[in-house]
Amino acid sequence: MISLVLTLRRLLSAIARIGKEPLFRTLLLTLAFIVLSGTLFYYQIEGWSLFDAFYFAFVSLIPAGVDTGLVPRGNLSRSFTMIYLAVGVGVMVMVLIRLGYAVLKLERPEQLDVKPQAKAAPKQKTKGK
Amino acid sequence: MISLVLTLRRLLSAIARIGKEPLFRTLLLTLAFIVLSGTLFYYQIEGWSLFDAFYFAFVSLIPAGVDTGLVPRGNLSRSFTMIYLAVGVGVMVMVLIRLGYAVLKLERPEQLDVKPQAKAAPKQKTKGK
Amino acid sequence: MISLVLTLRRLLSAIARIGKEPLFRTLLLTLAFIVLSGTLFYYQIEGWSLFDAFYFAFVSLIPAGVDTGLVPRGNLSRSFTMIYLAVGVGVMVMVLIRLGYAVLKLERPEQLDVKPQAKAAPKQKTKGK
Amino acid sequence: MISLVLTLRRLLSAIARIGKEPLFRTLLLTLAFIVLSGTLFYYQIEGWSLFDAFYFAFVSLIPAGVDTGLVPRGNLSRSFTMIYLAVGVGVMVMVLIRLGYAVLKLERPEQLDVKPQAKAAPKQKTKGK
Ligand SMILES: [K+]
Ligand SMILES: [K+]
Repeated sequence: MISLVLTLRRLLSAIARIGKEPLFRTLLLTLAFIVLSGTLFYYQIEGWSLFDAFYFAFVSLIPAGVDTGLVPRGNLSRSFTMIYLAVGVGVMVMVLIRLGYAVLKLERPEQLDVKPQAKAAPKQKTKGK
Repeated sequence: MISLVLTLRRLLSAIARIGKEPLFRTLLLTLAFIVLSGTLFYYQIEGWSLFDAFYFAFVSLIPAGVDTGLVPRGNLSRSFTMIYLAVGVGVMVMVLIRLGYAVLKLERPEQLDVKPQAKAAPKQKTKGK
Repeated sequence: MISLVLTLRRLLSAIARIGKEPLFRTLLLTLAFIVLSGTLFYYQIEGWSLFDAFYFAFVSLIPAGVDTGLVPRGNLSRSFTMIYLAVGVGVMVMVLIRLGYAVLKLERPEQLDVKPQAKAAPKQKTKGK
Repeated sequence: MISLVLTLRRLLSAIARIGKEPLFRTLLLTLAFIVLSGTLFYYQIEGWSLFDAFYFAFVSLIPAGVDTGLVPRGNLSRSFTMIYLAVGVGVMVMVLIRLGYAVLKLERPEQLDVKPQAKAAPKQKTKGK
């Protein structure tokens, strides 16, 4: 139970950290609309509970090993699923990567790529001259 | 039902936005050929319906949590599947990422990486002079 | 059946195109060793057929929606699986991306990022003069 | 059995190679905390064994085709899972990619992108002079 609180806090603090970036807001808002479409679709067409539909709509876009235990069966559902994935996976991946950086408290992606030595002795110390 | 229409519109408008880029056309055409090969293979060899085969061929290339409920069983099918994934996953990922940017209405991938401040007051080095 | 041949040809021609790059050879050789380790492990410890073990070892490293229908059950197998994924997924992803570019016949990853306009009328503005 | 030892050695030597990088340590430590949270949560709330919970928490964050055979069923568990994936997948992907480079014994990501010709005859043309 405390794990839930801790993990949720980690997410919220990450979002707080980058929530002011206009591009991240665009990302999050677009993702919210996409997941909402998916939720409503699976709720109405597959007849799943609202929570089941939301869970499936959210997890389906994530490149991860979780098995939702939910399988769309109808051909209409499966057609929608293909369009849904084409539209949503790219956006979800960007959100996840951006969130990953925020969880790590790295301000910018590039920070992961700089060489540690380069960080230790940066830009030229001669500025005082 | 309206979700389907909205999501489809989102996809089509994203494709319309980037459909003139020659590289995206190459991507999409190559992907179409690959998915077509997969569809025909699973249709003929696994004996799935044409729609099942297409659904499996399409979703299998996507790094996402959707469970198709379809499992290739024969050794020939599974050999094909390995080659199919090796050929197709990279292409699919590029399409998905490119589509993701188009859905977000970002013209170019770099736009996600620029600092918001840098956008607000760019390339102005002469201000001090 | 012809799909298998076509897809295999696509793979082989892609590999032929980039097979001379020393870095791709390193990638492929490393991946081959990793998949071989996995194959032998699942063959011996889980008692799967050699083909099943190879199929699982190969597909497990790929970020894609294919369901192998095989689930490691023992705790030793599952411990191995975690180590195996940590070692192999990064390498597999690099191979898949590199193969994707080769399938698209793009020489270099950067080609995907150049602006189409820049390609259509590039650095030649003085030709009329 | 020897496969396990070899694969484990590959992982350990990769970690040894990059374990001194402060950014990789941050990555690994953050990931460890996240996976620990997940393990405790699924252990307590889903009532899985400690090993099952750890295995699920670890593999769920990896974009790969392995089926854990474990499915979170309660709505609380599934709510946690969504937050857990949002927080953890980005971090896991960074660890996997960084590990991939280390397994390949490439010091820096850029090395994969240099052109082979450029490597074969690099910026030294004056040596004959
Ligand atoms: K998956
Ligand atoms: K899966």
